[in-house]
Amino acid sequence: MSKGRLFVVSGPSGSGKDTILLGVFKRFPDIKFSISTITRPMRCNEKPGEKYNFVSKNQFEDMLRNNELLEYNTYLDNYYGTPKAPVICAIANGEDIIVEVDVNGAYQIKNIMPDCISIFIMPPSFEVLNQRLRSRGTENEDRIKQRLEVAIKEISRADEYDYLIINDDLNKAISDFSDIIKADRFRTDRNISFLKNYLNK
Amino acid sequence: MSKGRLFVVSGPSGSGKDTILLGVFKRFPDIKFSISTITRPMRCNEKPGEKYNFVSKNQFEDMLRNNELLEYNTYLDNYYGTPKAPVICAIANGEDIIVEVDVNGAYQIKNIMPDCISIFIMPPSFEVLNQRLRSRGTENEDRIKQRLEVAIKEISRADEYDYLIINDDLNKAISDFSDIIKADRFRTDRNISFLKNYLNK
Repeated sequence: MSKGRLFVVSGPSGSGKDTILLGVFKRFPDIKFSISTITRPMRCNEKPGEKYNFVSKNQFEDMLRNNELLEYNTYLDNYYGTPKAPVICAIANGEDIIVEVDVNGAYQIKNIMPDCISIFIMPPSFEVLNQRLRSRGTENEDRIKQRLEVAIKEISRADEYDYLIINDDLNKAISDFSDIIKADRFRTDRNISFLKNYLNK
Repeated sequence: MSKGRLFVVSGPSGSGKDTILLGVFKRFPDIKFSISTITRPMRCNEKPGEKYNFVSKNQFEDMLRNNELLEYNTYLDNYYGTPKAPVICAIANGEDIIVEVDVNGAYQIKNIMPDCISIFIMPPSFEVLNQRLRSRGTENEDRIKQRLEVAIKEISRADEYDYLIINDDLNKAISDFSDIIKADRFRTDRNISFLKNYLNK
């Protein structure tokens, strides 16, 4: 059986990465999604185990001490992390698994799992990003400027990723992401056991 | 403009790599094929510049001295080589180019151009390979055994390649090859100049 693969996906706010991932999971229902473990309180529209698992700070710090996380960060006095076990299990079972993290999280994961494939999703231009962030109509000028600044910082680290997807057209971006997943299944490093069996026959 | 890519393709006799490549070039008429330079005499069914360029041994040895080849080998007292210039030009022009060589040629090319993507095409099993070689009906038992031995040696080096394609079904194999080409166009190393322009705007 061939090994699975961890795909690490990042992209700034306004890149459309969540919508692209929805489309990708629709095309590949067998691909797993890595659920983050976080310590902030659950919101009304959230369910445990959907996008997040909710734990106490003590529980999270236990996970940290036991080296159970692939990456973590803190934001507004709360922890956010990617548990290691589901990723390791998926890969051993020959399953692909996608984790969505920011550039710092991706950097941490690549150090621990250098075989992962990293994909950066970006808006076609800053003008489009600007429009997208403004068209939400829910945030004030300061917040939009802050998001743009963070986006520029993240895009300046896009060259650390294996692949770049420009989200100009949603369907094309989903299709581009799918091409990367499909091609990856033919990589030699995933098929070493097949090769060994082949030669031992 | 994004850079082009050199794809290095190998596979034993009976792997069906020539037929797969015909299908790939039909799907991607923009992809170039690297024409080998050889010193054996031209055959009746051959045209210069189609699959081979024919030169004298002196001319070939000049190319060797001038470091104009990506790889070369000798077979039955003749030289066979891949000229460097068309590959370098294609990549600089943003074009993909495919070169078909044996495992030794692929090894030489990877040392000179580590950014190339290498693909090994293999038959689904030795049984099928055996059948395919025999079904040609044009070769005697000794020649078939010799081809099988060479194939085993080549397949034992398949792990040196980036991708493996199992040619069980021709259309699937062409499609698999196409997925690898399509995904490659999103690799960050091909799009560094796009990223630079993006950030300088």
